[in-house]
Amino acid sequence: MNPIKTHAIFKYAVFLVFFTTNCIQKPQEAEQAVPATQSPIDPQVAATIKSFFDEALSDRACYLMLEELCKDVGPRLSGSKGAEAAVAWAKKKMEDEGFDEVYLQEVMVPHWERGKEEEAHIVLEDGKKETLSFLTVGGSVPTPAGGITAEVIEVQSIDELAALGQENIRGKIVFFNQPFDQRNISQMASYGATVRQRTQGAIEAASYGAVASVIRSLSSSFDDVPHTGTMSYKSGLDSIPHAALGVKSAELLSKRLKAGSVTLHMKINSRIYPDARSHNVIGVLKGSEFPQEIITIGGHLDSWDVGEGAHDDGAGCVHALGVLRLFKKLGIKPKRTIRAVMFMNEENGLKGGIKYAENARDEKENHLVAIESDAGGFSPRGFGVTASDEQLEKVRSWLPYFNPNTIAFINKGGGGADIRPLYDVQGTPTIGLLTEGQRMFDYHHSANDVFEHVHPRELELGTASLTALVYLIDQNGF
Amino acid sequence: MNPIKTHAIFKYAVFLVFFTTNCIQKPQEAEQAVPATQSPIDPQVAATIKSFFDEALSDRACYLMLEELCKDVGPRLSGSKGAEAAVAWAKKKMEDEGFDEVYLQEVMVPHWERGKEEEAHIVLEDGKKETLSFLTVGGSVPTPAGGITAEVIEVQSIDELAALGQENIRGKIVFFNQPFDQRNISQMASYGATVRQRTQGAIEAASYGAVASVIRSLSSSFDDVPHTGTMSYKSGLDSIPHAALGVKSAELLSKRLKAGSVTLHMKINSRIYPDARSHNVIGVLKGSEFPQEIITIGGHLDSWDVGEGAHDDGAGCVHALGVLRLFKKLGIKPKRTIRAVMFMNEENGLKGGIKYAENARDEKENHLVAIESDAGGFSPRGFGVTASDEQLEKVRSWLPYFNPNTIAFINKGGGGADIRPLYDVQGTPTIGLLTEGQRMFDYHHSANDVFEHVHPRELELGTASLTALVYLIDQNGF
Ligand SMILES: [Zn+2]
Ligand SMILES: [Zn+2]
Repeated sequence: MNPIKTHAIFKYAVFLVFFTTNCIQKPQEAEQAVPATQSPIDPQVAATIKSFFDEALSDRACYLMLEELCKDVGPRLSGSKGAEAAVAWAKKKMEDEGFDEVYLQEVMVPHWERGKEEEAHIVLEDGKKETLSFLTVGGSVPTPAGGITAEVIEVQSIDELAALGQENIRGKIVFFNQPFDQRNISQMASYGATVRQRTQGAIEAASYGAVASVIRSLSSSFDDVPHTGTMSYKSGLDSIPHAALGVKSAELLSKRLKAGSVTLHMKINSRIYPDARSHNVIGVLKGSEFPQEIITIGGHLDSWDVGEGAHDDGAGCVHALGVLRLFKKLGIKPKRTIRAVMFMNEENGLKGGIKYAENARDEKENHLVAIESDAGGFSPRGFGVTASDEQLEKVRSWLPYFNPNTIAFINKGGGGADIRPLYDVQGTPTIGLLTEGQRMFDYHHSANDVFEHVHPRELELGTASLTALVYLIDQNGF
Repeated sequence: MNPIKTHAIFKYAVFLVFFTTNCIQKPQEAEQAVPATQSPIDPQVAATIKSFFDEALSDRACYLMLEELCKDVGPRLSGSKGAEAAVAWAKKKMEDEGFDEVYLQEVMVPHWERGKEEEAHIVLEDGKKETLSFLTVGGSVPTPAGGITAEVIEVQSIDELAALGQENIRGKIVFFNQPFDQRNISQMASYGATVRQRTQGAIEAASYGAVASVIRSLSSSFDDVPHTGTMSYKSGLDSIPHAALGVKSAELLSKRLKAGSVTLHMKINSRIYPDARSHNVIGVLKGSEFPQEIITIGGHLDSWDVGEGAHDDGAGCVHALGVLRLFKKLGIKPKRTIRAVMFMNEENGLKGGIKYAENARDEKENHLVAIESDAGGFSPRGFGVTASDEQLEKVRSWLPYFNPNTIAFINKGGGGADIRPLYDVQGTPTIGLLTEGQRMFDYHHSANDVFEHVHPRELELGTASLTALVYLIDQNGF
């Protein structure tokens, strides 16, 4: 490459860089199709919203708080020491931010522990074993001390059990092997289509006389990291041990079953303790004009006991805290009362969400809207809104305030598990943050849900988008 | 958690799961605001587009091809053996897919190699050294065999050089330390604002008598992995060695400079070879009705010599191949001629793109539109369109065919470096795929641009979105 040639190329290259910079990748400055329902942009509101993004992206405060929650506190299943440490951490964080009020809301939660040394292996003919990647489902009873050893019967769905009947199932370990449907653009749909094998599997298997059940992990990935989650038993039926296999282990087991009968040994040392006292953690900025009108923004503080609950739902917790923090940092006094709520026990009981709604009913609180971030700390893509058509249109009218690389659409229908009880008891409208979710179910409820899988800019775009939404509701009412 | 209590919770939980599944996270089934300009959906077209997504997401063929390109071929800078292996790989892949025609288009390309043992360190007073993370910028001349040792002078921008003047710069190593502006939602804007320190830095530093120059890597991350890229020299000025430091190393150097004068030693063993013969690789599906009307979909086959060129631009190559592949696999005979083009030498010369355009002009080809994927293999978010207002509206009218978790907006302005010459020589409209780009400049032109940082579903959503776009253009004309 001689200098003269290079120079010619260079001019071209610089041109291209600016062509690229100016035309291809700066949608925030590009024209946007504005539907008829959308109102014109108020430049001052737009400037305030820009300041939320500027602040969140440059100080990365929520990302640094999430690191503390993941690394210093760690996993925090309801009833555990981790959960109590998380409550103390969250309360202190909110106090350090100087919110108008910070308080705990007591709630009794279930307390289950998996214990140590859970394992499963295929018993081979020569006395050797083939170990599987294995994780007890949350709430499962233990096996007897020596474990359970039984023949395995595989099904692709719960419906297949009826056709097989008691004669084929009694005394066996049922293996539910329904995979995620990769064709769904939203893997939440795939989760919804397979989740019954985890939540209902032990009940259904027991009803046909099975001695235990295992499931293929509810995972969008192709790795061997098993995913846990909640489950249930039914009174009058045996409570049988119930666990998840990593996807690769599930495929290995299925392959072995195609070759002939398979005996599985599994051992679980879980234990259920008495319900424990725990807390929702609540921080408040008092409204200056309409203090009785409450906007709740929340996430859930509890997580599963594997991983660090980084995306599920550490991200939502720091989002909620971050919204109030940005108001304070930028000196914006809200007209209405804004509450950041870190709910306890979303994962296996929802006691925190229920308590919060019961309290709202008892205190006759006026909740304007409740917003939840529980779709992971990925880049935002939209909001889902459960509200009147008029309210939905109102949110849609705010779309021009958002760079479409953050919030590009507003769906009808949305909210979050923790704020659903508020909708149930007093019809509070709910809004959920929708994220770029392709990686969510690779990590969800597994040892892979760790801080390292959260990207600072993606997380903080969520913080700023939620702050903008709360600000627009606070300014305009709802 | 006793069975009865659990059962009550469970009913609630199942309800929530379905509430979540049905309401919160399935935007494809939610209502979409349809601007007035958008045409109603044709159910058969929608079904065909759905089949593109179903196929791409379930067979993951492009992801598996990308693994081959990254792991079997690897880095492939123009003129290297890797680039020639990539040409052979791409040609064979296209032939294996049974496209109507597969051919190479010869092009002469620059051939630069970094050589081995490049390094830089701060010379400490006690004779010890503090090693920095260091990567020569592509095209840089070498240092003398023993390296260069000189005092460092830091600037935040090229503009500062004039104020300092020759008296402060002569004989020194200029250190350009302008960071990415994290506040930009699009980090392409941050790249555009800092890229001159890489492309122009050596020219500007040499013009004030500097003996070498180093830059803070053009990176959105906070790690210490240095990023390379293209640069230029100017005839009549000394060609001085030019290299990039990792972000942490740049910050360390800046910190040392705050404490006093710093001597840097740097060694580069790069070499420029004579221009090499290489090729664009082109695969064709012939149009059945309007074979003279050509739709080009492309990416660039060359990459930098560090990493594996996974996002930049292996993703674009398998996207282009994947579009034609999906047409063939689903038995769709295009009305117009569709070409998948893997361009050579986008990174340091653009010779492939220029050659393709010159050939189009010489052969009087009728290019309806040229599309490029060069924004990484992340989830798609939109398209950028450089075309007439009428054509732009046409593309916008197709938005309802896309789940907003894939393509949610159509920007005015867009394309790609390789297809820009086609626009220049014959005004061909250009379209670029816009992706969820927050991670792009963490990896771009660095050793971190590897296959492991590509997510199969995100990549394949791009394949299907591009196939849908090409299909809509093929069916409707442009
Ligand atoms: Zn959650
Ligand atoms: Zn590229």
